Amino acid sequence: MEIEAALERIKAVVGSRGWIAERAEQEPYLVEARRLWRGATRLVVRPASTAEVAAVVRICAEARLPIVPQGGNTGLVGGGVPPEDGTNIVLALGRMNRIRAIDPVNFTMTVEAGCILAHLQQAAAEADRLFPLSLGAEGSCQIGGNLSTNAGGIAVLRYGNTRELTLGLEVVLPDGRVWDGLRGLRKDNTGYDLKQLFIGGEGTLGIITAATLKLFPKPREVETAFLGLARVEDVMTLFAHARAATADQLTAFELIPRAAFDLALDHVPGTIDPLAAPHPWYVLLEMSSSQTESGIRALLERLLETALGEDLVADGVIAESGPQARELWKIREAIVEAQLYSGSIKHDVSVPVSRVADFIVRATAGVTERLPGIRPMAFGHVGDGNIHFNLTQPVNLTQPEGADTAAYLARWQEFNDIVHGVVRELHGSISAEHGVGRLKRDEITHYKSPVEIELMRRVKQALDPANIMNPGKLVSL
Amino acid sequence: MEIEAALERIKAVVGSRGWIAERAEQEPYLVEARRLWRGATRLVVRPASTAEVAAVVRICAEARLPIVPQGGNTGLVGGGVPPEDGTNIVLALGRMNRIRAIDPVNFTMTVEAGCILAHLQQAAAEADRLFPLSLGAEGSCQIGGNLSTNAGGIAVLRYGNTRELTLGLEVVLPDGRVWDGLRGLRKDNTGYDLKQLFIGGEGTLGIITAATLKLFPKPREVETAFLGLARVEDVMTLFAHARAATADQLTAFELIPRAAFDLALDHVPGTIDPLAAPHPWYVLLEMSSSQTESGIRALLERLLETALGEDLVADGVIAESGPQARELWKIREAIVEAQLYSGSIKHDVSVPVSRVADFIVRATAGVTERLPGIRPMAFGHVGDGNIHFNLTQPVNLTQPEGADTAAYLARWQEFNDIVHGVVRELHGSISAEHGVGRLKRDEITHYKSPVEIELMRRVKQALDPANIMNPGKLVSL
Repeated sequence: MEIEAALERIKAVVGSRGWIAERAEQEPYLVEARRLWRGATRLVVRPASTAEVAAVVRICAEARLPIVPQGGNTGLVGGGVPPEDGTNIVLALGRMNRIRAIDPVNFTMTVEAGCILAHLQQAAAEADRLFPLSLGAEGSCQIGGNLSTNAGGIAVLRYGNTRELTLGLEVVLPDGRVWDGLRGLRKDNTGYDLKQLFIGGEGTLGIITAATLKLFPKPREVETAFLGLARVEDVMTLFAHARAATADQLTAFELIPRAAFDLALDHVPGTIDPLAAPHPWYVLLEMSSSQTESGIRALLERLLETALGEDLVADGVIAESGPQARELWKIREAIVEAQLYSGSIKHDVSVPVSRVADFIVRATAGVTERLPGIRPMAFGHVGDGNIHFNLTQPVNLTQPEGADTAAYLARWQEFNDIVHGVVRELHGSISAEHGVGRLKRDEITHYKSPVEIELMRRVKQALDPANIMNPGKLVSL
Repeated sequence: MEIEAALERIKAVVGSRGWIAERAEQEPYLVEARRLWRGATRLVVRPASTAEVAAVVRICAEARLPIVPQGGNTGLVGGGVPPEDGTNIVLALGRMNRIRAIDPVNFTMTVEAGCILAHLQQAAAEADRLFPLSLGAEGSCQIGGNLSTNAGGIAVLRYGNTRELTLGLEVVLPDGRVWDGLRGLRKDNTGYDLKQLFIGGEGTLGIITAATLKLFPKPREVETAFLGLARVEDVMTLFAHARAATADQLTAFELIPRAAFDLALDHVPGTIDPLAAPHPWYVLLEMSSSQTESGIRALLERLLETALGEDLVADGVIAESGPQARELWKIREAIVEAQLYSGSIKHDVSVPVSRVADFIVRATAGVTERLPGIRPMAFGHVGDGNIHFNLTQPVNLTQPEGADTAAYLARWQEFNDIVHGVVRELHGSISAEHGVGRLKRDEITHYKSPVEIELMRRVKQALDPANIMNPGKLVSL
């Protein structure tokens, strides 16, 4: 049969180290972090070069064999997981992990899709430069996945999403041809900006095999502060103040609610409250400068003083050392970890920065009305308008925690509807940074106009008419 | 006849103030700044609202009547000029000039396509914010045109091109439907980023009618310096130093060659050389901060001191006042004006920032070999790798200047080929900021791969299958 023959040809292209047919060895490529999906496949293919990727895709195009491109498999929306019916092959980029070039004067590096994000950060640092993309999974996620999902993370405020960090791409198209768009240019107005389609395209239009990325001057001074606030309404006023007062050198502006901090203090050993008394809300703020003797410490002190004077901030601490700054960041990490200990219904939403407080107030009211005792954990990158509005299950005093978790999680869609309804009213997005994948493919159709969905379909059909690139993800045809 | 009937229906939609059929009154819509093209049209249409634009386009779609969208008509590549055969209508956006909303806390404004750029800068300033897009034509160009050409200008280094300043768009599609993508979000990963196709799409995929744009904290302190350098090879080393030393607060880094400065001193009254002796190259450098007492003056002084110590810079001056800074910027403007007085063959190219000096050396050698005495004026936004490599005709000692200008300009393509050849070797772009339009539509096909040209055609066909949106511009079908 044709598929069988195609699989054999693919094996021949990539050689014995380049494919996995054993079910047990395939395991890491078939499941994902939250275990929401488990797929199946005839073959996991691990090509070692762009030429091999192209040859594999040409065979797939001829045989109409669908392909799921996969990076570090750390995505949370099922975009990299093959369907259960085993009809797709998985094309994993991990062996394409060379840094092709670093150009410190052009502030760029050209890297292959399978490079681990943390390795790229390190390579940039060794060239006395900064590659600013930074997120929880950086130790295992791959840059190809970051590009395909337009990953966000903690430095978006200053440096932008992965999209804004990208100057050029190399892409294997659905017919197996290679588009060499690996440019290191800040300005290039010679036609449609094609790379933008593949960035955030979740592998549905082609396979990104390499990219030319922006670098930045390395920070020499970093200042970190942890501020307690009485009212969520003041958070974004503080943000506008902070942007101006720090000369736009803010690198992070993260919101933490007391409820999440409490959970962290209970569950995560080593979490410490640096302030004398509890406050309903906290902001973790970081600024940095590529200059020594930059004066950012003084800027931050002045900001804090003014904010205290205007009652925007109730109390606050500025880290006196690197280790102390890391302690403050540990709080941010601990609130994520702490949510693992109870049932948690997740939302990754964004609204205009001016509506963040409004969103939190309205969404909290909505979910609390539906289920009194529910514990909203509104945290995240509010400097970008991005709130991880997670809902921890109510404390059940009659049962040990966990006993009613399954029943709670079964109401996932019900609470999504409430929260996403508020997002819609405020002209926000129901997937700020994690993408669409399988999780939200149908749901976005309720939040986008039919015109927009049709435009997306037309783009998909124009670039992948045979629908072999990650079919069933992002957009359905 | 059908076209006749369509024109009458269009007139009825926009009302008597909304159309121009008189040839004489149409004049400003038919020619462009350099007078390279003169078009003709049956009708100039000036709709006053998105609904009117949509109604006009619906009629055109039915009648297969092609449309040339036009903003301030300040583009330099013929993108907004109708063809000579009079078959296209011109749809001018100038009456759609409302600022729909300014949201200072979200750092955004939502504006209609016909707004003059300078008015938007002013409106932002009145809201204590900065809209950073700034370019020579800002007093008459319209934001819709800036968006459709992804305009660059003098603040790209710090704030990015128009693309990077755009969060959302409203677009009338080629079938007359409206895509409302007017989002004010910093993060939104819910599918293909469709707005990217229309930005820089030169009106070939739809008509941008409104946009939500990013604002920034207003600068409180600005420092300007004018530096003389002996060697072009040192320019980009200085740039890398300057980025780091100014904590990435550089807003401009412009190159000026002595030859262009000489021309300005000769032709433009009021141009003054602030340095004691002449130098082969100059850098005009600006940094700014949204903070008072920012310390940027000290940063700049330290940079200059170091650069003088390392012999990167031969001499330099830092403006002591706003008027003095304006004097320095006048030099930059004067070198453009001075080129009007002789025949000048233009290039708007970019290369990786690390290759700027290399480009200038090689391209200068190439054109000088072909025509000894030719005067290359390599100036522009070199911090972005963007060089306006203009070639002033040789001084003719036997004839009054101008007598041989026509013969010189007839060699335009010959010199384009030499210069663009060097651009290609250095992986650069033959249109860094001005776009493709008619001028470079066929030329880009020699510098892009067939794969890329085909992808562009597929996108065009997917969105505008009837080819009625600005046909013959950017890409030919």
